[in-house]
Amino acid sequence: MTDQLILHEYGPSGNCYKIRLTAALLGIGLQRRTYDILRGETRTPEFLREVNANGRIPVLQIGTRFLPESNAAAFWLADRSALVPDDRFDRADMLRWMFWEQYNHEPNVATYRYWMAFVGADNLTELQKMQADGKRAAGDAALKLMDDELRQRDWLVGNTATLADICLYAYTHVAEEGGGFDLSRYPAVQRWLERVTLLPGYITITD
Amino acid sequence: MTDQLILHEYGPSGNCYKIRLTAALLGIGLQRRTYDILRGETRTPEFLREVNANGRIPVLQIGTRFLPESNAAAFWLADRSALVPDDRFDRADMLRWMFWEQYNHEPNVATYRYWMAFVGADNLTELQKMQADGKRAAGDAALKLMDDELRQRDWLVGNTATLADICLYAYTHVAEEGGGFDLSRYPAVQRWLERVTLLPGYITITD
Repeated sequence: MTDQLILHEYGPSGNCYKIRLTAALLGIGLQRRTYDILRGETRTPEFLREVNANGRIPVLQIGTRFLPESNAAAFWLADRSALVPDDRFDRADMLRWMFWEQYNHEPNVATYRYWMAFVGADNLTELQKMQADGKRAAGDAALKLMDDELRQRDWLVGNTATLADICLYAYTHVAEEGGGFDLSRYPAVQRWLERVTLLPGYITITD
Repeated sequence: MTDQLILHEYGPSGNCYKIRLTAALLGIGLQRRTYDILRGETRTPEFLREVNANGRIPVLQIGTRFLPESNAAAFWLADRSALVPDDRFDRADMLRWMFWEQYNHEPNVATYRYWMAFVGADNLTELQKMQADGKRAAGDAALKLMDDELRQRDWLVGNTATLADICLYAYTHVAEEGGGFDLSRYPAVQRWLERVTLLPGYITITD
């Protein structure tokens, strides 16, 4: 690998942590460049022009090219590694969990945590306040779906850890921050979270 | 390919059309099994147990296995075909657009269309009514981001059509249904939509 890798990120974001954890498990070095999303540092004209027109982190810079979307950046790092299954069905099933994460899990589990633990309940807009209960219910439904699956198997896809586990670990393991979710209700998820921490090369979200 | 392929679907859904269009472009035959989502036919105990615990269509059945999530099912069909780039960066960049589609485009462009053209403005919940303007604004931002990109290039990734174009075509080309979006504001998107219809094997959403 000759291109320099720079992760444009915000440390406490689970979406950014996914990429750091994937790189750590694969022994790939990343430089880190930090932006304060609470101060709008990813919405400046310069950021929109040079890093991501969508105004969001994480973005993985590969040499002079920029790759937004956390799960796509993690896929770039893991492509053709043991974290991406060789089997055609399993490879697609891994992506199934990753798309599900972005549609059903992150907008609920992660957004609720962000609102309550970072923005603060008192600072939410009226619309956000109205949406909060629904997001908590949908987040619990997502965690229950994972728990039902993980009662039957150690990993989400096949018999070993894949990118699906890494990407879903990121926001699941901090779901209790902000007080919205009680992981003791999901014992199979708790055992799976522990399993992820035992993977060689594992780093925490604050490492 | 020996496994029988059955698409569990609802015809007017863009997420289901993505899979049919991908299969048509690749010359792959699909059986279709239809559910009426407006009557809750994907939330029955039988559907949840046998097809998708997440209660959603589309689901691609491959022999006796079930693959939910539209973009994952399209990926399974297109894996190792010309619709998925060989180049490592381009392959991840294709997934970048597909994850962006599920996070930034579909929940706005598709949900607004569904609410207005299928559910009906008068039948929305109070919360949905409050969210509608925000979804329209976010949908316009997504269409503008695509337009900015497509002013510079014919296809979203590389120099040929990929799964990213197919997956984003699905809801973009029907964005005007329900009255929320005016595609004449996005001329580069309109030219790209036309380009997709010229791909060999193209089928419409009602075919």
